[in-house]
Amino acid sequence: MVTGKEGKVTLVSAGPGDLDLLTLKAAKVLASADVVLLDDLVNPEIITLAPRARVIRVGKRGGCRSTPQAFIERLMQRYARRGLHVVRVKGGDALLFGRAGEELAALREAGVRVEIVNGVSSAFAAAAGLGISLTHRDHCQGVIFVTAHLRDHSEPDWHALAATGMTLAIYMGMSRIESLCATLANTLSTATPAAVVQWAGSVNERRVTGTLGTIAAHAQAAGLGSPAIILVGNAIGEAALFAQTSASFGSHAYDALEDALRISA
Amino acid sequence: MVTGKEGKVTLVSAGPGDLDLLTLKAAKVLASADVVLLDDLVNPEIITLAPRARVIRVGKRGGCRSTPQAFIERLMQRYARRGLHVVRVKGGDALLFGRAGEELAALREAGVRVEIVNGVSSAFAAAAGLGISLTHRDHCQGVIFVTAHLRDHSEPDWHALAATGMTLAIYMGMSRIESLCATLANTLSTATPAAVVQWAGSVNERRVTGTLGTIAAHAQAAGLGSPAIILVGNAIGEAALFAQTSASFGSHAYDALEDALRISA
Repeated sequence: MVTGKEGKVTLVSAGPGDLDLLTLKAAKVLASADVVLLDDLVNPEIITLAPRARVIRVGKRGGCRSTPQAFIERLMQRYARRGLHVVRVKGGDALLFGRAGEELAALREAGVRVEIVNGVSSAFAAAAGLGISLTHRDHCQGVIFVTAHLRDHSEPDWHALAATGMTLAIYMGMSRIESLCATLANTLSTATPAAVVQWAGSVNERRVTGTLGTIAAHAQAAGLGSPAIILVGNAIGEAALFAQTSASFGSHAYDALEDALRISA
Repeated sequence: MVTGKEGKVTLVSAGPGDLDLLTLKAAKVLASADVVLLDDLVNPEIITLAPRARVIRVGKRGGCRSTPQAFIERLMQRYARRGLHVVRVKGGDALLFGRAGEELAALREAGVRVEIVNGVSSAFAAAAGLGISLTHRDHCQGVIFVTAHLRDHSEPDWHALAATGMTLAIYMGMSRIESLCATLANTLSTATPAAVVQWAGSVNERRVTGTLGTIAAHAQAAGLGSPAIILVGNAIGEAALFAQTSASFGSHAYDALEDALRISA
């Protein structure tokens, strides 16, 4: 398929999983896609929103080897140069972790027109599931989004991060949660509230709450693994209070949506 | 209006301004709202999505005095107790700044059922406008979302935040941008890339780029004021490269959307 018009790439944020957490703009862009490049961790049902598109899975899960980054970048350029609308879909918000910086740089250098559609990052969905603000002003002045998975296998400076007094939202930390919590406990009290939310913002969401001293064991006992967000900080303590009065929160979360669908049906 | 069913409050994130950056879920919840409580900084056109609702503006702008927080909380409880679906709309993502923590606690204590719908926070929209990742892995391991506006008029520990090496996304800092940048320059080089984006993710978006040493003057010269996001960090340096090759990015941002609308029309 070759068209006369100028091609382009739109980097679309798929949000945390539930398709209803896509933005209206993301849904509209998907509807106009000629080619969709689908990242790992994106809800595969998203392709139902892109009926015209050729779908290419470039994820790193499912038993396959990782698709080389350079190959993904070449693929986007090739289709865009044919005049096609390429939609590159990434989980959460595309601009938080996930190599968007490298893909944008490569497209820019190749002179390919690129647009970006934001989305909901999974730490926000984790907080919603827990029923808490990430930045309750009784407890902190902000929140740090940090990845525990660094390119050179080193560690972030956990002491410096903990010393800020901000809520910590740790991505990709489940494989080392025990050592990570032990390291943070060099700076923070082991009584600091903590939570783990797996598959936040999807129908498979599971969560545990505790403290910096207990959360690794709680997560292990509950069988929680990747992908999950680890939250640490005094603002997270509100989650325990919320759980006491809203034990059935999880099952209620879709009621508003169902109500809305009934009305519009 | 009194119904037989159980009332509830849904805390809905309105995103950064453009209604197309609302989630599908937010749009569905608004469609089913009986009462909408609208915060300041939310695009007022959002009420077109809530045709059944009584709309109450509880913002702090427009020449009126601030609506007392306790009054807002009582209002939500009163309507929910009448069996109504109250939708409390906040800008950005409701769980980042903006007192959601206090409102959730008050509703919880009152035994009112509450749900949360996430959205796009304005720092993500600012990064999208600049064409950059907030966390390009060549430059940093994460991002800090911090408010410069503290309840007790004190300052966050800027040295501790800057020392982490993370991208800083500073909310509500425009009234003191000059002193804020000067303070950060005690820890970071004045050559550190920086940007200011006003009304990020709305049709009124305006942005300037520079360095920690120049950005306050650039923002002032361009007449940028609140509401704006101040971004500081090496990852922000990619914005200058992007601007060189995509001068017309702003005007292109809605093309995909227009294409999509034409197709579905």
